[in-house]
Amino acid sequence: MDDCAVLEVGGEALVLTHDALVEGLHFMPGQDPADVAWKLVATNLSDLAAKGAEPLGVLLGYQLGADDARFLAGLEEVLAHYSIPLLGGDTVGQSGPQVLGLTALGRATHRPVPSRAGARPGDGLWVTGALGAALAGFEACRAGAGDSLAYRRPQALLSEGQALAPVVTAIMDVSDGLLLDAARMAAASAVTLAIESAAVPIALAEARRDEALRWGDDYQLLFTLPAGAVCPVKAQCIGEVTAAGNDGVLLDGAVPSGKLGYEHR
Amino acid sequence: MDDCAVLEVGGEALVLTHDALVEGLHFMPGQDPADVAWKLVATNLSDLAAKGAEPLGVLLGYQLGADDARFLAGLEEVLAHYSIPLLGGDTVGQSGPQVLGLTALGRATHRPVPSRAGARPGDGLWVTGALGAALAGFEACRAGAGDSLAYRRPQALLSEGQALAPVVTAIMDVSDGLLLDAARMAAASAVTLAIESAAVPIALAEARRDEALRWGDDYQLLFTLPAGAVCPVKAQCIGEVTAAGNDGVLLDGAVPSGKLGYEHR
Repeated sequence: MDDCAVLEVGGEALVLTHDALVEGLHFMPGQDPADVAWKLVATNLSDLAAKGAEPLGVLLGYQLGADDARFLAGLEEVLAHYSIPLLGGDTVGQSGPQVLGLTALGRATHRPVPSRAGARPGDGLWVTGALGAALAGFEACRAGAGDSLAYRRPQALLSEGQALAPVVTAIMDVSDGLLLDAARMAAASAVTLAIESAAVPIALAEARRDEALRWGDDYQLLFTLPAGAVCPVKAQCIGEVTAAGNDGVLLDGAVPSGKLGYEHR
Repeated sequence: MDDCAVLEVGGEALVLTHDALVEGLHFMPGQDPADVAWKLVATNLSDLAAKGAEPLGVLLGYQLGADDARFLAGLEEVLAHYSIPLLGGDTVGQSGPQVLGLTALGRATHRPVPSRAGARPGDGLWVTGALGAALAGFEACRAGAGDSLAYRRPQALLSEGQALAPVVTAIMDVSDGLLLDAARMAAASAVTLAIESAAVPIALAEARRDEALRWGDDYQLLFTLPAGAVCPVKAQCIGEVTAAGNDGVLLDGAVPSGKLGYEHR
């Protein structure tokens, strides 16, 4: 989600991130606590993935909720899936809507640690996979039918991030919508990102392409590569980097209108 | 408060801790948010102090509250006081009682990193300062008169912890009451801690000595030293370590009755 902190310690670059989820804002009271645990961990690990970091562990700030055993089951599942330890944390009493916090800590596998700043005019713009999968999953979840996994249990693309770190000029995860996150990368890199709408892989019907480009929660990696560079992971080139105008993001040559993605708070 | 996690990274021992504070449970709705920020940071740093760690920074999980500017002012003040950076974190929307989480990260200055396990029969038991100061401050706060600083703005004894780390056999901070925390050290070390009530420095009237031994929030360091060892910091010897009976803590030779301290949750 956010950009991570990078800290030099004993010859290693530590990568740190902290995200919080609030009941009623980031997850619904009726949601399976095991899925909430999964998402809390996976979204933080996605931040590490975008730094090419290898996770070392997490610390959990847990507020007691409706079904703590179920949360714990999901937590164990996601930690086992990514082979990372729960290093510590704190448990506090119930008091209104549940608030959950997670700190994830990793070790950079490549130096310098890549960031969302660094895209240069002439670079290609790439994305690792289909957008809109989480939206489709969300709709399946709400309908009580169909495959909701992409929404409930997002994947952190850790090995992809590690493979990309040495070759990208800029990288971030797409958590709040492609257009919004691309605008953030454009701002951080002081460039314009020209996206070709038709080139973007989507997980929704063609008629809903525009929604797929603005919906969040997919946690694909968005990155830039020098022109002609071979991409080391499965990914799609969706546009190119041009010199900064005042536009940030161009979609098929025009400034996209409306909300670009999910704005927090 | 809790015991920290210790993680070996790049030839350094990282020390990590995460604590959460909940409005209505750990702080009162009317309390000055600047004091809440101070306490959130200082109590986490106190965990690092008990490891002899030098703090590297903190990550904050902040839920918007009644006066965010005032919280931020207190946060800036406490971070400047301890000369540590805010490395990152997350801000989430308001939704019922405010929940705040903080992860503190440090670098151990001495290896092996001391813990609450390690006290040996024959060691002396020591404490760095007067207990009950936070209780006196709490009462001043409630009365609206007198010095409430010890309650509102506890100190993390970082330099004391660093001086003690090479010489102690066990160490922890007293956050939940001397008797309760001593019982935890006794259990972790598989020993009995025999405390001499009259030797314990207190910040309350003599008639309230027993309260001072059970009230928390003082964040003094409790530690054990081999018999005859010179204590490198200002501290008081308050008893000795004996072989494990079934008692954990003895107060003037007897098992203390009643609540030993503040039990969480």
